[in-house]
Amino acid sequence: MNDKRERILKAGVNVFARRGFYSAKVSEIARAAGVADGTIYLYFRNKDEILLSIFEQEMSRFITVVENETGGEESGLDKIRKLVRVHLGFVKKNPDLAQVFQLELRQSNKFIKEYDGSKLKEYLDLIGKFIKQGQREGSLRTDLPPGLVKRSLFGALDEIATHWVLSGGRKYDIEQSADQIADIFISGVAVQPK
Amino acid sequence: MNDKRERILKAGVNVFARRGFYSAKVSEIARAAGVADGTIYLYFRNKDEILLSIFEQEMSRFITVVENETGGEESGLDKIRKLVRVHLGFVKKNPDLAQVFQLELRQSNKFIKEYDGSKLKEYLDLIGKFIKQGQREGSLRTDLPPGLVKRSLFGALDEIATHWVLSGGRKYDIEQSADQIADIFISGVAVQPK
Repeated sequence: MNDKRERILKAGVNVFARRGFYSAKVSEIARAAGVADGTIYLYFRNKDEILLSIFEQEMSRFITVVENETGGEESGLDKIRKLVRVHLGFVKKNPDLAQVFQLELRQSNKFIKEYDGSKLKEYLDLIGKFIKQGQREGSLRTDLPPGLVKRSLFGALDEIATHWVLSGGRKYDIEQSADQIADIFISGVAVQPK
Repeated sequence: MNDKRERILKAGVNVFARRGFYSAKVSEIARAAGVADGTIYLYFRNKDEILLSIFEQEMSRFITVVENETGGEESGLDKIRKLVRVHLGFVKKNPDLAQVFQLELRQSNKFIKEYDGSKLKEYLDLIGKFIKQGQREGSLRTDLPPGLVKRSLFGALDEIATHWVLSGGRKYDIEQSADQIADIFISGVAVQPK
């Protein structure tokens, strides 16, 4: 069964968040997972591979959550608003994972240089799908390239999430910012003509 | 004089961009700078400190460019539009530095954990100043917190810059995206009521 693999990944999130990816030792992850050091190497070649597997698995879980939650919304515009809420809600509900995603992940040379980015692309494509839907429905501007639009929204969410983690996380309610960010993105920051 | 220090930093940008921060050796930087290995240690304690000094110096230069270029604009709104253009124009004009800023920097454990972020804060505060000016002038919405607004814009620009670097840099004209990004941010992506 994959029970041990699961336990190792879960322990990895905890140890990476607490100790940092760089300082964390595979033996600490083994201890936290309640397995022998050698057992880890039955599943993962090294620390980078544990990190990569955490990313892949948790991104899959995250994307499923976003798909399910936005599934109840009809329009592209509503789906985008919902996605922003679910994205920041996920960060808030998973502070250890948020630390790993927003900070630790970017310190793995292997991850940045060698990961093909498929899971991240999958998420960006989901945002892009909602944007295209909104464009088809006539609620979103068609003069803006969806690729640029999806990256702008993702970048804004990512920066807000990183700031939340860096500022000690639990200090302010990141979920409350969701509607404001959706608003900046959808309606812009300019005063609208009355 | 600081001529050698300058040469080391310039060589550092080049070597980090070409070889990656992780793989780069101090001796390679010394060779590229035309100084003896030992000379580097008169100025910097280690590779991380070279990277940090590159960041500090180049961020200062960048902020000065942004301040000068936006100085000719009157309104907060025009200053923001200009800032977006200057930001992406700077990325385009300095592809090696862009690679170091967008990718290599984030792999230094020391940088992420120990850098106090003062130069980045300075830039974010400059964006914030323009936003507050726009709010005072009545052109920008006052119901949105300037902190969230500045981070959303910075996040969007940062993500676009990273994507440009990761997609092989020079492939498309990032500067041409500037007005569209400013537009997404200022007017939003929704179709405006006629």
